[in-house]
This record gives sequence, structure tokens and C-alpha cells, in this order.
Amino acid sequence: MTAVRAQPLVSQAKTQDVRIIDTDVHERAELYSLLPYLEPKWRKYITDFGWQPDRVLPYAQFAAGGLDREDAKLPDGRPGGSDYNLLREQLLDEYNIDYAVLTGWLDASALAPGWPEFKTALMSAYNDWQLENWVARDERILGSVHVNAHDPQNAAREIDRMGAHPEFVQAIVYIGDKAYGDPYYHPIFEAAARNNLPIGLHHSENSPTALGFHRYFVEWHTLVPQVFMSEIVSLIFNGVLDKFPTLQVIMIEGGTTYVPHLMSRADQQYKELRSEVPWVKRMPSDIIREQFRFSTQPTEEMSPEKFLALIDGVGSEDLFCFSTDYPHWDFDSPWEALPAGLPEGLQRKIFFENAQHLYPKMPALRAR
Amino acid sequence: MTAVRAQPLVSQAKTQDVRIIDTDVHERAELYSLLPYLEPKWRKYITDFGWQPDRVLPYAQFAAGGLDREDAKLPDGRPGGSDYNLLREQLLDEYNIDYAVLTGWLDASALAPGWPEFKTALMSAYNDWQLENWVARDERILGSVHVNAHDPQNAAREIDRMGAHPEFVQAIVYIGDKAYGDPYYHPIFEAAARNNLPIGLHHSENSPTALGFHRYFVEWHTLVPQVFMSEIVSLIFNGVLDKFPTLQVIMIEGGTTYVPHLMSRADQQYKELRSEVPWVKRMPSDIIREQFRFSTQPTEEMSPEKFLALIDGVGSEDLFCFSTDYPHWDFDSPWEALPAGLPEGLQRKIFFENAQHLYPKMPALRAR
Repeated sequence: MTAVRAQPLVSQAKTQDVRIIDTDVHERAELYSLLPYLEPKWRKYITDFGWQPDRVLPYAQFAAGGLDREDAKLPDGRPGGSDYNLLREQLLDEYNIDYAVLTGWLDASALAPGWPEFKTALMSAYNDWQLENWVARDERILGSVHVNAHDPQNAAREIDRMGAHPEFVQAIVYIGDKAYGDPYYHPIFEAAARNNLPIGLHHSENSPTALGFHRYFVEWHTLVPQVFMSEIVSLIFNGVLDKFPTLQVIMIEGGTTYVPHLMSRADQQYKELRSEVPWVKRMPSDIIREQFRFSTQPTEEMSPEKFLALIDGVGSEDLFCFSTDYPHWDFDSPWEALPAGLPEGLQRKIFFENAQHLYPKMPALRAR
Repeated sequence: MTAVRAQPLVSQAKTQDVRIIDTDVHERAELYSLLPYLEPKWRKYITDFGWQPDRVLPYAQFAAGGLDREDAKLPDGRPGGSDYNLLREQLLDEYNIDYAVLTGWLDASALAPGWPEFKTALMSAYNDWQLENWVARDERILGSVHVNAHDPQNAAREIDRMGAHPEFVQAIVYIGDKAYGDPYYHPIFEAAARNNLPIGLHHSENSPTALGFHRYFVEWHTLVPQVFMSEIVSLIFNGVLDKFPTLQVIMIEGGTTYVPHLMSRADQQYKELRSEVPWVKRMPSDIIREQFRFSTQPTEEMSPEKFLALIDGVGSEDLFCFSTDYPHWDFDSPWEALPAGLPEGLQRKIFFENAQHLYPKMPALRAR
């Protein structure tokens, strides 16, 4: 007996022409393309001092074909997500995506320590580049405010600056090796709340597991949900969700099947140990249902019955928001990611309604 | 809506006089009581050089009453589990336990690096102390072979030495911050397999989470299952279960609700990335069902329906083995830990039959 059933998984999304909001689409900059957006004093960190993004993962082989879908790489060698026209063709037009929320590359909050002011400037440059090269080019593309979380006061200023743009719908913070419930990081959550932006948390190459980086990529990739569980626990028990009761947080690219376990375990520990954290006023599972959302990718193949048991396990149909993770190797097609035969109402919630509620600034769906 | 139901949780174990095998009982030595079992050259590490066990967790407040049940502490100040007579009274006689498998204290594999030969000697002394003071005193009490995992050749010798004793039924390795799938540790698993002993893996104060030790005990304790997931993933993808196909591993004190998620996630990653680990021949969930077991404590309160959904989620009634974790603060009473109304066959499996199959050396149940 195995837990994964061999059966067709094509959903009704294609034939029913369901609306789709994709909550995890990775655009990609070449480092040199950010230079025009940097002041000369910061530009020198790249041109003269040789700064390069971290390559932390000790695995040369991400997957059979590398990090990206083979067909998303560009003939000139640039990685997937580098070219608007190809992304439009392969994702927005191919699947008739209503809105795609960009989740980026090079988020300084996940980078190794060092040169913090440079990284704060780099994030501002990245946001300006993102606006001009992506968000402004297609009304279906919505932006995320990238920040250097390790410089929280300036991160808050950046959220204020870019949050004023109507098409930047969330602030994104990549997970490195720090637990963001620490009060040091609260200015970021405060800024997101006052700008009516959800926070997106996304893992990175710098995200460890409980026992480090292990020997093989498949081990690390199996254990990626750990940093999502850790951040949720950190935010809840350090009172961030009670301190900012309007704040919404979406956990991006960690999958969904860890959530029932986390709810059950955290509730039990809260019942037994709540005297240690008296500022936490609700059961962790209630906080999760009220203030957390989860992008679906990478989905795990399962029968409709297993999927409905998962929904029952989290106690709400409102928590999961569809995502493709284009252009990465484990891209989830809207036509295949969810099991066939789900109730239409649940399918609508996952494909677009839950995301509509999550992003207050997202424009209404356009008529087709 | 909350995921945890408020309802009576008294099982039928009391009224039905079910047989009980307790797979996690912590006996405790005072450090000075180990001195007679050490050669003088090693004794000096304690008496002259001042070695003390690590205190890694940064929390003074384990729980409202400290690490132990208030009533398990001794009037002279010794911690719970120090006294055979009290343990017999509070656990073995109180609940009519058929067999209790000792899981100890002071396992060198979880200690910080340094003085490896001393720690290897300390584990031999601990095993001799355990035999004389516990295992030999009560036929219901069965021993675990403690080893210094970071000295694998000598750990294997110790498993051969103590494994020859009929009442030492498993080899126990505490989890620190190392992933035991590394070939460096394989001699330990090889020795366990050739002695027909299961390996018990138990977390420790030295077990980190993916983002370190966090700010509060409740955070760390909620995230303890991470190191169990990490060890399972490490053992599976490094081929330990394929290399030693008769080996059985029991994960002790990590709970059970993480297992369905881990199975589903690991299966999906295996399907996508198996080319990286060609020596792994079975689906991870099949390996888990065939070669892993899980002690139940700390249980999470849940309805019988939720518990049966958990059993369905792991796809087998054979995986969970009852445990109390006596004398710790979150002790699970056999009369209250499982929801009421479970099928009698399932209850028998969890309370004793699964453990009987796990421990080949365990004697038959005595007539009552």
C-alpha cells in the first residue's frame, strides 16, 4: 500500500475556464541590469568590489534539468523568468492567468550577513527595476515589495515607498536562517499592516533544515517545509499576529500538507505551556486560520479524497491560494496540480477567491 | 472553529485491563553514581576535570513545574526517574505495565563535541549501571544500549557487548545536530542489525530546529518533530534502510502527527528526484511503513475520528507504539492518552502488539 495513488490528476480548470490568480511567479534580473537603478556609490559594490549573490546550497544538481524548466531558459543562456515575452506566452496567455503576483529573486533578507546598507539599496533598485520592466508592462502582473529584513527600519521605509504604488500588492521577505518573530523584525510587519499589504514569506537557498543542509538535494527539498513551520511558530508565539491583528501572511512555496500537523501540535503545546507566552490570546490553529494563507505549489499528487481530508485537517476552505512557481523545474500547471473532481466552490476559492481576499489592493477581475 | 475538540479522552485501557508495553521510560542516574563503573583514568574527567552534562536549551522554565512531574521528584531533591521504588509504584504497578523499555539520560550521541573517548567509556559505564540498578531488579524493565554515536566503531562494539544481554532490547541513539544517514554512522546501524536490535532515536536538549533555538520553550517544543523528520529523511535517502533491510527504527518522543505529511512530501520528492539517489529502491512511505515505528507520546488531544484519520494518513495500524515518557511533565497516562472508542484491535496494536513485533528479544507476556 502506498499513500500516493496512481490516477489521472487533470483538474477541471481547463475545461471550465476558471479564473486563476497565480501567487508565486519568479521574475529574474541579471545583476548588471540593476546597475542603472543604483546610485554610483552602491554600484561600485558590484562593479568594483565584485559582490555576487550567495550560492549556499551545496548541490550542483538541483534537478534533472537544473533550477528551471528546460523550455523556460533563454537561447542566450539567461535563466527562466528573465524575459517578459516568454513568461507572457508560457504562463499568462497559455493558462489565461488573471493576475500573477511576482515573487522575485535576490531578496536580501535571505542573503548572508555583510554590507547591510548596500543590500538595502539593492532592494530599492530591485523594486524600481521590477516596476519598470514587469509591473508597468502588463496589467496582469502585480509586484511585491522586496526589502532587506535585516535592516528593519529601512525595510519599513521601503514598504511605505513602494506600497504607495497601486500595483505592488504585498511585501515579500525571504526566509534565511532567522526567526522573524523576534521583535527586531517587527517594524517590517508594522509597515505591512499600515500599508494594508500582506507579508509573503518564501524560503531561499539560505534556508537550513533542523540538521543543516544534508548530503543530497532531495533531502533538503523534502525538508523545506521546516523553515515555514519555524516562521509560523515564531510569529505566533512572539505575538506578532496579536500585535498586528489586521496583518495577513502568506507562506509561499512551502506546500500545504504540513499545516494540519503544525496546527495540532502547536495547539497542544499552547494548551500546556501558554503561561510562558501570555500575550498570545488565541489558539495557534485559530491564528493560522485567521491570519495565514498558503500558496499551493509544490503540490503533492493525491486523490480527491486525500485532498478533501487535507482541507478537513486545516478546518477551512479559505487557506490555500493557487500558485505555479513558474519558471522552476517543479512548476505546477493549473490544469494538473489539483486532483480532478473537487467541488466547484472549493476550486474557485483555491484558484482565485482566496487570493482576492488576501490582497486588498488587487484590482477586480476583468470581464472576459 | 478549532482543530482540537473538547471532549473526554479516557480510553478503555483501564476498564478492559489491556496489556501495555511502555516504549519510553526515563530512568535517571546521578553523575557520581556512575563513578564506580568507570576506570580511574576516566573517573578523573568527572572528579578532577569537572565534566558536566550539557545544558544547551536556553530556557530556565521547561514547563510550569520544570522537566519532571511534580510528584515524581524525590524529597531529597533528586529528579524524577532516579528511584526504582517510586517508578515501580507510579508507573509499573499503577498502570499494570507489562514491559517498560528504558530510554535513559545522558546519551553521549547528543552531547557537544569534545572528549570522545571519555564519552565512549561513560556510555559503557552507564549501561553497566543501568543493568545492575534497573534491568536486573525487575523483570518488567528492559534496557537500551546507550552509545557514543560520534565514535561509531566503539559504538558498534558496545552494541555487540550489551546486545548479548537478553534483557537489553534496543540500541538507543539520541539526536543531537547530526544527520545519521551519513556513512560515518553506518557501523552503528550495522551492529544493531546483526544483534537483531531495533534502533531507538530520541531527541535531546541539543536538537535544534531549522531556525535554531528560538526565544521560548513553547516554540522549541512545538518544533521538536523537525529533527525526527530530518533523521528519517537522512536515513532513507542515504540508503541506510536499503543497506540494512532487516533494521527497524523507532522514533521516540517525537509524536505521530507529522508522519502523514512526511510520507506524502518524501514520496513526491522521490518521484521527482530519485535519479539523485539511485540506491533507494522503494517509495519513502513504504520504507517508513516497513522499517520505522513511532512512540505515541506526546499525544495531541483529538477525537476518535481524527485519530482514525491519522491512522488512515499513515496507511497502517502497525506504526504506533504506546509510551508514557514517565517521569516527565508531559507524561501520557495509558488511561487518557488515546481517544475513547477506538476499535479494540487497533488499541491492542498500539498498546502492545506493535511493540512486541518491534522488539524481537522482548519476552512473551506473562500470564495474569
